Amino acid sequence: MSKIFVIGHKSPDTDSIAAAISYSYLKQQQGVDAVAARAGELNKESKYALDYFKVAEPEYLASVEPGTQLILVDHNESKQCVDGVKEADVLELIDHHRIGDFETANPIFILVRPVGCVNTVIWGLYKAAGIQPSKAVAGMMLSAIISDTVLFRSPTTTEEDKKAVAELAEIAGVDYEAYGMDMLKAGADISDYPAEKLAHNDTKEFESNGKTFSCGQISVMDLAPINEKKADIMKALEATKAEKGYEASYLMVTDILAEDTYLWFTAGAEEAAEKAFGKKAENGYVYLPKVMSRKKQVAPFLLKVYGE
Amino acid sequence: MSKIFVIGHKSPDTDSIAAAISYSYLKQQQGVDAVAARAGELNKESKYALDYFKVAEPEYLASVEPGTQLILVDHNESKQCVDGVKEADVLELIDHHRIGDFETANPIFILVRPVGCVNTVIWGLYKAAGIQPSKAVAGMMLSAIISDTVLFRSPTTTEEDKKAVAELAEIAGVDYEAYGMDMLKAGADISDYPAEKLAHNDTKEFESNGKTFSCGQISVMDLAPINEKKADIMKALEATKAEKGYEASYLMVTDILAEDTYLWFTAGAEEAAEKAFGKKAENGYVYLPKVMSRKKQVAPFLLKVYGE
Repeated sequence: MSKIFVIGHKSPDTDSIAAAISYSYLKQQQGVDAVAARAGELNKESKYALDYFKVAEPEYLASVEPGTQLILVDHNESKQCVDGVKEADVLELIDHHRIGDFETANPIFILVRPVGCVNTVIWGLYKAAGIQPSKAVAGMMLSAIISDTVLFRSPTTTEEDKKAVAELAEIAGVDYEAYGMDMLKAGADISDYPAEKLAHNDTKEFESNGKTFSCGQISVMDLAPINEKKADIMKALEATKAEKGYEASYLMVTDILAEDTYLWFTAGAEEAAEKAFGKKAENGYVYLPKVMSRKKQVAPFLLKVYGE
Repeated sequence: MSKIFVIGHKSPDTDSIAAAISYSYLKQQQGVDAVAARAGELNKESKYALDYFKVAEPEYLASVEPGTQLILVDHNESKQCVDGVKEADVLELIDHHRIGDFETANPIFILVRPVGCVNTVIWGLYKAAGIQPSKAVAGMMLSAIISDTVLFRSPTTTEEDKKAVAELAEIAGVDYEAYGMDMLKAGADISDYPAEKLAHNDTKEFESNGKTFSCGQISVMDLAPINEKKADIMKALEATKAEKGYEASYLMVTDILAEDTYLWFTAGAEEAAEKAFGKKAENGYVYLPKVMSRKKQVAPFLLKVYGE
């Protein structure tokens, strides 16, 4: 059998990077010529984890040739897949997301489980196969679970995610809490990011009732550095809003230690933001305590207001 | 947690019936209030197996209420699901087919494996959980595997299917070869079936590129009885095709001893059938030697032609 690429989603997070590494390692132990790949640039958090555990970067694939053999990890919706996936040969899917527009011509191995991180699913497959990851691979797997669950703070965290981290930390030989905080800090370091990049960090478009708005999100451990750049960030957000014809642009500045979010908005969106969350705005933002999830806690309320 | 129905596809075969029984039994052992259900009439083969192992019929659901909790086994395409599934709450999917238009709002447990029978997948889940089926449930499981693999004659058969039957036969205490031939014979007896029923035996709908076609399958041990009824069967197929607005309706008449299939088709489908299989049609059918599997050897080729 020819080479099989194990690949996560575009704009990969640490879970997609680690899953490509951990699942390809498992397949290699089972005699399969599997190679870890990535569909985009590494973020700072992933770089920190790869450096710490001395693991090579997955191979970058800008797109794939027709007939390339792929195993998809951590995603299944076509918009998130590496370019060319429609003509590729998808052999397996290991995920922890909802199923979107995923289709196959033939039956393939698919395992999706509603846990906080796909590396928790992959850890289950290691155990079922009676195979142990290397120290370094175990380190990448626990990095992924810490990243996706924000060290167990996210409401998506399950008991199994916590158990997996404890077990993997034994193999990797790390104090996962201390390591995890350092890794999250590295990922949240925005000091050398230009305002333009911060304004569009992890931005998604939403449409309701013919009105389109955008909402990005940045996770930080300290509000001071981003607040210092606020004027420039808002200028960039206003420019994009005008250019794309959005009703408004939002940016969730999420404090991952305090577990709350400051929802920044462009000029004129004050009324919508106040209405969506039933809160008074101040200085161009709405303060949302215990809100960390765009998908669950922010987007639905904005969509409702724009839908009226 | 309220009652959860474990249900297979419409026009259920022995695999769908046995999977509803075996997976609900497994969930019950794990403390879940799971109930075996069926989305259509039992066929003769399933009746034979249920009688032999003295197992109660799954509960018949003509449709489900909004919010009903379902676990889907042995199917995932919406056209094959019990009526009302779109407003139901699908909690899990255990399957061995291609993924069609299956979507979920949230992440759920999904396990799909490319083996001959979904009861082989379920047997793997029993082993992973360290739970043993009752004699009767093991009997239903091995009946399903024998049915889907036509006693290992189908090209969809894997070594794991064979191993599962051997292991389940130990628990059920049966000679699976002798029992299997008797069960297949019971299922292949069409002598008292009206043409209308034969026309719609184990029928599945498929959609590709906005075009819908149906394909049923009948396994026989002797071609003469069904050929005698061909004119009436085709009349019934044409009527349903017109009523439902299908592009075409197909019926696989599979000779399980010779291990080949006569693919009958409705008027106007000759070109599509010939193109799909690269074979000349004769008298309203395409002869397909060594073809027994709709899933692997028929549906993908028809889907491709209609997708163009």
